[in-house]
Amino acid sequence: MVDILHRIGIKSPVDDVFNALTTREGLSSWWTGNTHGKSRVGDMLKFRFSVADVEIGGFDMKVLELHPAKRVLWQVVEGPDDWIDTEVSFDLKQCDDHAIVLFGHLGWREPTEFMHHCSTKWAMYLMSLKSLVETGKGAPNPIDVHISGDGPD
Amino acid sequence: MVDILHRIGIKSPVDDVFNALTTREGLSSWWTGNTHGKSRVGDMLKFRFSVADVEIGGFDMKVLELHPAKRVLWQVVEGPDDWIDTEVSFDLKQCDDHAIVLFGHLGWREPTEFMHHCSTKWAMYLMSLKSLVETGKGAPNPIDVHISGDGPD
Repeated sequence: MVDILHRIGIKSPVDDVFNALTTREGLSSWWTGNTHGKSRVGDMLKFRFSVADVEIGGFDMKVLELHPAKRVLWQVVEGPDDWIDTEVSFDLKQCDDHAIVLFGHLGWREPTEFMHHCSTKWAMYLMSLKSLVETGKGAPNPIDVHISGDGPD
Repeated sequence: MVDILHRIGIKSPVDDVFNALTTREGLSSWWTGNTHGKSRVGDMLKFRFSVADVEIGGFDMKVLELHPAKRVLWQVVEGPDDWIDTEVSFDLKQCDDHAIVLFGHLGWREPTEFMHHCSTKWAMYLMSLKSLVETGKGAPNPIDVHISGDGPD
């Protein structure tokens, strides 16, 4: 098993970050504008992505844990084969005037080239989360930062 | 052992990317302006970083492999304890009009919080490499993108 790990600091109260991770409005403003579902334990969130106005797929996540100001955990139940049964975690803590986010996309079976891509792309989306909370403006799909240019980017 | 993995695509000939990874001019234009040494197998490269005009440390890398248009491998011989003996690899290939970079920072003993930080920071520096090769302008330290704001960032 291999994991994607990241860390960012966001100049904000940790509650604002938790809100951006657990509401449709928040999620659609930093990850993908095409977000549906409810952020409640046991419920599903559906994230879909587009490139040049064409939907290219996405992920259905089951919400496993929601601990206000502390932790969010999702399990991937639909999506690319590589993603199925992996978990996505956000661990939060307040350090002075910054909310620290420790991110994990855990349990990849192999370090595929697609996993390398997703690692870099997650970094861009986490910077989008940081920007959203700090400035009110994120860069969710389809206005996300492109990292490769040779495919679903 | 845990690894940091990333992938980017750069709209350029792969030789231009290899050049940016193996010359002092290239390295100082996307990773850190404070780069010294020679990129020759068996020689050392010295990278130092500053925050607010104060040098905060850096890394000495031994060049282990240089395969034009294909691969660069360094070993960390001086730097933070977590980094010692880890390896940094860049595997390159041309896919149509894009040079694909598969990056690895390999052999971390533990998935520490610092490792999470370095994973995100490497993504930012790889985007700086992409920008340098595509546009002529990177974002090396000390004009790098800040990801946390609560420390050496």
